[in-house]
Amino acid sequence: MACEQPLNHVTIIGVGLLGGSIGLALRDSFPDCTTAGVGRRQASLDVALRVGAIDTATTDAAEVVGDSDLVVLCTPVGAFARHLAAIAPHLKDHCAITDVGSTKREVVAIAEATVGHERFVGCHPMAGMEKKGPRNATADLYRDALCVLTPVEQTPRPLVERIDAFWKLLGMRTVEMTPAAHDRAVATVSHVPHLLSSLLMSLPATADLPVAATGLRDMTRLAAGDPEMWRDIALSNRKPIVETLTRLGEDMAVLADAITRGDADGIVDLLEKAKTRREETFSDGA
Amino acid sequence: MACEQPLNHVTIIGVGLLGGSIGLALRDSFPDCTTAGVGRRQASLDVALRVGAIDTATTDAAEVVGDSDLVVLCTPVGAFARHLAAIAPHLKDHCAITDVGSTKREVVAIAEATVGHERFVGCHPMAGMEKKGPRNATADLYRDALCVLTPVEQTPRPLVERIDAFWKLLGMRTVEMTPAAHDRAVATVSHVPHLLSSLLMSLPATADLPVAATGLRDMTRLAAGDPEMWRDIALSNRKPIVETLTRLGEDMAVLADAITRGDADGIVDLLEKAKTRREETFSDGA
Repeated sequence: MACEQPLNHVTIIGVGLLGGSIGLALRDSFPDCTTAGVGRRQASLDVALRVGAIDTATTDAAEVVGDSDLVVLCTPVGAFARHLAAIAPHLKDHCAITDVGSTKREVVAIAEATVGHERFVGCHPMAGMEKKGPRNATADLYRDALCVLTPVEQTPRPLVERIDAFWKLLGMRTVEMTPAAHDRAVATVSHVPHLLSSLLMSLPATADLPVAATGLRDMTRLAAGDPEMWRDIALSNRKPIVETLTRLGEDMAVLADAITRGDADGIVDLLEKAKTRREETFSDGA
Repeated sequence: MACEQPLNHVTIIGVGLLGGSIGLALRDSFPDCTTAGVGRRQASLDVALRVGAIDTATTDAAEVVGDSDLVVLCTPVGAFARHLAAIAPHLKDHCAITDVGSTKREVVAIAEATVGHERFVGCHPMAGMEKKGPRNATADLYRDALCVLTPVEQTPRPLVERIDAFWKLLGMRTVEMTPAAHDRAVATVSHVPHLLSSLLMSLPATADLPVAATGLRDMTRLAAGDPEMWRDIALSNRKPIVETLTRLGEDMAVLADAITRGDADGIVDLLEKAKTRREETFSDGA
């Protein structure tokens, strides 16, 4: 690793899909490093042990973090405060902490209040599937995906470099953003699209559904996501999401007005720009 | 065929993806029937001839419809009035006419004014791909898909049964709706979802796009559709689309308010209902 601190022992708190995949990726890329998994339910920890995502398991993080060089928080964001407060007194001086939460401003604020910016870099690996649980974990979940790091002014650069090196070890590309810029960006590229998927699924009358075909199918795949996870994301990224929903509502009203007025050129102009942007952003066309 | 009228000769006006696929399906399912294709551009007609979608080709519908038992309109809806007016004087007494347009109220009104309800049943085969043109036509485009028939009170039942038998010959399932009910239904299950795909692609700032991942990719696939076709659909189905956009805007405002108030139960309730509906509507989970 391109840093001075060792990576002999990692604690993964929350060994679901994301945490389990970190464990599997570490096992493949850095087999000298041992991993401890922390969770609430023994049955879930047993699955993680069985698939080889972790070497040891416990329901009590305080038991294991004292041996760790790195702790990765992979529980729902709503549990972070509790976990960080519980582990703070037990950490080795050089132990770093990071997370995989899909919102950052709130997470970074919680970390500041519990463990401090000297230990913590908020991260968001942009990877995942609709599936849940350690049995769906894979060693290559993060490979070639993007990880956003959200250090703040007070975060020591050597710490940022250690965390950056960790995600690169798992095969990720990395980029830095402020927590607020991250949260605005994911509101527009992830959170509002997911919420619209659920709204579009709720929109038709029951009598309309028999004629639903590929259009609605394509636009409602994300509506099958985990309701509790998306509730937590919506509440954690409240302001950017509401601002984005408001902006989308305004765009819809402009389009509705153009359709009412029969503004053929205005409509095709909007559709053409969106098509071009789509082709440029997702250039493989998939 | 389960009807009294022969099906020896069919004219397909507009031999793109949809028209070409009808020709190929007829060739496979009912090889005794000959097909004439009508189009504006000889190059396109040549492709259709070459792939075997049609037996003969012409740029002048009047030349061929006099031999036809059935005419199928497969051009953009905006061209229907012109074609129907041009062919009306040349049709055999028993010749029936149908179409594949994705809106019905406007189409049925145009047909009433040109060829009359005694000859015409508006139809919407719910099949198609993002691709265009006769070279992408396939014989099984319609197989097992749903075709909506939109007869009106004045439409003779024997005519409806003939047209129903035609689509079943191509392997489709059929259902009847009024033109207005069809247009409202497709506004909610197809047209507004497609338009939202374009709006969601336009929504992020350019600086946000580097963190776009599977969420935005999934919700913007439809934004790569044909801008002119979707402009025409928006203008043809104006009122139901605007009503649906208005309703969606209201639903978005309710959700934004629930998020602002931190109404965790309200949010998860909406998401859970959408998830259940998704699983019931698209029970293969794809």
